[in-house]
Amino acid sequence: MSQMDDFFEAGLNLRRDMWGPGGAEKAIESATDFTAPMQDIVTRYCFGEVWNRAPLDRKMRSLLTLAIVTTLGKPTQFKLHVKGAIANGATTEEIREVLLHTMVYAGVPAAVDSFAGAVEVFKELGIEA
Amino acid sequence: MSQMDDFFEAGLNLRRDMWGPGGAEKAIESATDFTAPMQDIVTRYCFGEVWNRAPLDRKMRSLLTLAIVTTLGKPTQFKLHVKGAIANGATTEEIREVLLHTMVYAGVPAAVDSFAGAVEVFKELGIEA
Amino acid sequence: MSQMDDFFEAGLNLRRDMWGPGGAEKAIESATDFTAPMQDIVTRYCFGEVWNRAPLDRKMRSLLTLAIVTTLGKPTQFKLHVKGAIANGATTEEIREVLLHTMVYAGVPAAVDSFAGAVEVFKELGIEA
Amino acid sequence: MSQMDDFFEAGLNLRRDMWGPGGAEKAIESATDFTAPMQDIVTRYCFGEVWNRAPLDRKMRSLLTLAIVTTLGKPTQFKLHVKGAIANGATTEEIREVLLHTMVYAGVPAAVDSFAGAVEVFKELGIEA
Amino acid sequence: MSQMDDFFEAGLNLRRDMWGPGGAEKAIESATDFTAPMQDIVTRYCFGEVWNRAPLDRKMRSLLTLAIVTTLGKPTQFKLHVKGAIANGATTEEIREVLLHTMVYAGVPAAVDSFAGAVEVFKELGIEA
Amino acid sequence: MSQMDDFFEAGLNLRRDMWGPGGAEKAIESATDFTAPMQDIVTRYCFGEVWNRAPLDRKMRSLLTLAIVTTLGKPTQFKLHVKGAIANGATTEEIREVLLHTMVYAGVPAAVDSFAGAVEVFKELGIEA
Repeated sequence: MSQMDDFFEAGLNLRRDMWGPGGAEKAIESATDFTAPMQDIVTRYCFGEVWNRAPLDRKMRSLLTLAIVTTLGKPTQFKLHVKGAIANGATTEEIREVLLHTMVYAGVPAAVDSFAGAVEVFKELGIEA
Repeated sequence: MSQMDDFFEAGLNLRRDMWGPGGAEKAIESATDFTAPMQDIVTRYCFGEVWNRAPLDRKMRSLLTLAIVTTLGKPTQFKLHVKGAIANGATTEEIREVLLHTMVYAGVPAAVDSFAGAVEVFKELGIEA
Repeated sequence: MSQMDDFFEAGLNLRRDMWGPGGAEKAIESATDFTAPMQDIVTRYCFGEVWNRAPLDRKMRSLLTLAIVTTLGKPTQFKLHVKGAIANGATTEEIREVLLHTMVYAGVPAAVDSFAGAVEVFKELGIEA
Repeated sequence: MSQMDDFFEAGLNLRRDMWGPGGAEKAIESATDFTAPMQDIVTRYCFGEVWNRAPLDRKMRSLLTLAIVTTLGKPTQFKLHVKGAIANGATTEEIREVLLHTMVYAGVPAAVDSFAGAVEVFKELGIEA
Repeated sequence: MSQMDDFFEAGLNLRRDMWGPGGAEKAIESATDFTAPMQDIVTRYCFGEVWNRAPLDRKMRSLLTLAIVTTLGKPTQFKLHVKGAIANGATTEEIREVLLHTMVYAGVPAAVDSFAGAVEVFKELGIEA
Repeated sequence: MSQMDDFFEAGLNLRRDMWGPGGAEKAIESATDFTAPMQDIVTRYCFGEVWNRAPLDRKMRSLLTLAIVTTLGKPTQFKLHVKGAIANGATTEEIREVLLHTMVYAGVPAAVDSFAGAVEVFKELGIEA
């Protein structure tokens, strides 16, 4: 198997661990000509290659991702990555602190939007917070 | 001493640990009527209150800050926080991975600018990387 | 009462004046362990300390806030602050001009989104514009 | 007829070609005191003056617009401009490549949001992709 | 004289009042084929048409502009508009408060950069602050 | 040779065509442990894989890149890509129109900064514009 196939497999495994089959092979199988190259590149490059590099572990990368997508203002991606962060072992206290920290640097509205998004996800997952 | 004074002291201590007296009491003493309220609020609220909250430690908050200011595109603040991250125990490998991770989510130009900024700081500090 | 308590009270009063009890004490009472530190910091630092500084009055700060959150692209916060701006005495003409001015500097899409958000709020409040 | 009237007419014609009468004269007729100056300036300056300048043609300007509003993170404007791009002759392959290209420079979340938006528009228009 | 010529004249006058002949007719006379259409559109649309609309006065528009360009992170434009704000009657206290307000919403790094830029301009203009 | 090697070679070739050996093999040879993974990923993924996809040609991708980095506000990357765009066959008229188009959507300051950056590059390259 080539290294590109390895990265694809590693990315698929990470996606499955973070979001189940619905966010992994099923997302890729249901891709169309329009979305398939994006799914392929994101799986290989983002989840397969970058996310698996040492020395940062999955939980650390999840917390970084929450800070970055809060700064960017991407509520859909943020909520997805709250689920992924929980799957990667992050606690609600850690997520809260990431958002308070981001509030200092990216401003109140970015953080307030993400607090609301996290609360939605916690409810959906039945997590007390 | 009031809690506001406590936060100010804690913030000043953190600033001194991260950047020496030049980034702490000297910055505050040289503040003018124009800059003093900003120095005061940033010291109390940002460095005194938020940075010292559990359970995220200083190194973790430094790495989050590097990701956020890279996403925001603030090269001066980025270089300052590379120094602070080193003082807080971050390695060049960890900083590199934070930037590669941010590259995925915030794009190539944001990351390339921060790689260049980090290289400048490493040279200035005499760090091999 | 400490200065921090004073800032909290001042912030709560401003929130009540801008959005009624639902956006003030009720929001704070219903906060959870996850959201309470954010509500506390925002009330003290943002609404209690910064918003009450001379020489800019509340209406002026509302109009600045509308320009900033339009530039940031935060539609939920924008609509909230349209209500706050009306409570602080801003006219629909002033809000319109803030958005036309922001259009020049932050671009057409940012302004068009905020025009749509403001129209929604005016309808909800029964304001002709 | 003055040059300003010419620009307005040219802008109205472009809006009609891209979105039909609903996005052109009807949008302008239904404007209120609050929205009319914005509609007028956008029609004259944006669609009448800038969009019609040589040597970039309409399809090229549509593809540029898709890249820019993806970078800005404006999903409502993005979907509107996918329709406009199709009306201006862009293919789904070209739109896909604009989004993959933007993904490199503006990051994965910006591109993923726009892929989802484009898929919605293609379904609405009955386009296979 | 057509309305477009009127807007151009009004814009040129505003530019001259804010930055002297160097930021007005001289900038336009020295424009090349590459920059002339930009100078023309900015003078007519931005400074001639939008800046002169009631009921916001020049000082108010200057303060809004400082908040917006701080949020956008445009240090060169920011420093230019600090000069323009002073010419339009803004005080250093008002500029300070605009920046503290923007710090809440757009984050600490955006505000810190603008504080530094404003201090540079005040020195250049010989203003104590 | 594996597909990953192919992408690397293709990326290196594109970098050489756009910026000469200094922006291609020399940049990669001088990479350190800190910068090498970034140089490798950017060469393979960005320049090797995405830039070479049909049906958008190199000039089209250069113009898109100029619009995106203007919107992001990355002056160093912008100037680099003006050189690349010229190498890929873009004219100064096309670059001017990309910037005027971006001005509408991303605002005046973003465009003005890029006009200034382009003028610098044209001078450096001895191009009349």
